[in-house]
Amino acid sequence: VKRVLVTGSGGFIGRGTLAPLAERGYEVVRNTANLLEPGAPERVLAEVRPTHLLHLAWNAKPGEFWTTPENLDWVAASLRLLRAFDGERAVFAGTCAEYAWTDETHCVEGSTPLEPVTLYGTAKHALHTLVERSEVSAAWGRVFFVFGPHEHPARLASSVARALVRGEPAETGPGTQLRDFLYSEDLAAAFVALLDSPVEGPVNLASGDPRPIRELVELLGAAAGRPDLLRIGARPLNPSEPAVLTASVDRLRGEVGWTPPRTLEQRLEETIAWWRQAETG
Amino acid sequence: VKRVLVTGSGGFIGRGTLAPLAERGYEVVRNTANLLEPGAPERVLAEVRPTHLLHLAWNAKPGEFWTTPENLDWVAASLRLLRAFDGERAVFAGTCAEYAWTDETHCVEGSTPLEPVTLYGTAKHALHTLVERSEVSAAWGRVFFVFGPHEHPARLASSVARALVRGEPAETGPGTQLRDFLYSEDLAAAFVALLDSPVEGPVNLASGDPRPIRELVELLGAAAGRPDLLRIGARPLNPSEPAVLTASVDRLRGEVGWTPPRTLEQRLEETIAWWRQAETG
Repeated sequence: VKRVLVTGSGGFIGRGTLAPLAERGYEVVRNTANLLEPGAPERVLAEVRPTHLLHLAWNAKPGEFWTTPENLDWVAASLRLLRAFDGERAVFAGTCAEYAWTDETHCVEGSTPLEPVTLYGTAKHALHTLVERSEVSAAWGRVFFVFGPHEHPARLASSVARALVRGEPAETGPGTQLRDFLYSEDLAAAFVALLDSPVEGPVNLASGDPRPIRELVELLGAAAGRPDLLRIGARPLNPSEPAVLTASVDRLRGEVGWTPPRTLEQRLEETIAWWRQAETG
Repeated sequence: VKRVLVTGSGGFIGRGTLAPLAERGYEVVRNTANLLEPGAPERVLAEVRPTHLLHLAWNAKPGEFWTTPENLDWVAASLRLLRAFDGERAVFAGTCAEYAWTDETHCVEGSTPLEPVTLYGTAKHALHTLVERSEVSAAWGRVFFVFGPHEHPARLASSVARALVRGEPAETGPGTQLRDFLYSEDLAAAFVALLDSPVEGPVNLASGDPRPIRELVELLGAAAGRPDLLRIGARPLNPSEPAVLTASVDRLRGEVGWTPPRTLEQRLEETIAWWRQAETG
């Protein structure tokens, strides 16, 4: 029997892993302990005795996660989890912030330099270097830009979608930057596909269909039927943001065999529908 | 009052820190807890409430420390220690194995690339990237090649010294590689000088007086009065060992203001005297 322990299973990404895990025949155990408490990682693993580990828990609060010293606690807790795990396969969540961001960066696993500038990226990268050397079969799924149901309202797609369904103006920057966006449930399914594969090492979990941020915003306006509410360029461009930050999906497509099942346009329509439901209710 | 918690204070390096710490006016508390037990780092710090932290504890067993998965436990424990420490100044032990070793590497902090190939070097480097970003004033002392009293008998200088004082042949490789050797008590004093300084970031703790390994062996033979027992070249050269691995000591001399108080020759004579005492006394 395949029994997977999922950490962070109540989060923005984690909640979407439960259905695809069940579909692939996994018995799913959702972690409910606070993994930052001393001894918790060891205790949970001793109780659950999973064959598979999908470790998504981390501090992901917008405005906080880039810099919080709690990033160090998550490295320590993740190492304890890794060391106490004696199953057959583990998958961890990495980030595009591990890569060295130049003004135009196309991130390719194994060749793009890894030089994180944020504490979050540094912490994830430090953990990655140690996961890479562990004896368990492990993969490291690097997350890019995500949107969808349950997204924290302070983030881009959610703030635009909420304003639109409320009939309020949506102010954004000029949105010239090229990014790889993935629907949260698709990212969750990609994590599950990675776990259920024998692929090891870093794998970008992305759509491979990069768009300017402006286009994402315009598609949300169209999906909501309210392009008139968009105020693109009302806010300044953040000059510290790279112009291009995209992902190679060669490993994800060619080795894991996963591609997004729907277009960005379809997923943005679903996102608007979800926010309409959530806001009006 | 300056109260320092020293971890690893019973070890090869740590034992030599106690006298220089006392001389500089520190109240010294030696950690006696097993820091790998969950909750131990937090508990020790809550009990001792040190103003200074000198963290030297790690798995350093010859033949084991390069590869043992316990390296991950030491990263986790060190992060817990760092996070729970609320004093003013902390110093951690790094290693020359963090640097990218080419065949001829002169290690300069801040410019020589950091690309460890061993698990030990990877673990130390991962910890270093996170210590660098902590809010406490912290320095990272990189250790090179060490010899002296209490050295594990499986290591180079100790095995040669023991053989010589026993009147047995001492077989070594050709010893053509250039290395930076430091006497263990001098390294300990350098760690204390670093702790007692305001210098932050990585600092090579080395002599700045590199010698071929062969010369170290010959000086041991001379100090013991038994050059006839040396069998230099009886063992093969390890081809994976770089020909040159030396240390810039500009930061240690110029910023910390520390230099070795004795020559290599004098320290090797003391080493022979100590082994003579240990073996016969």
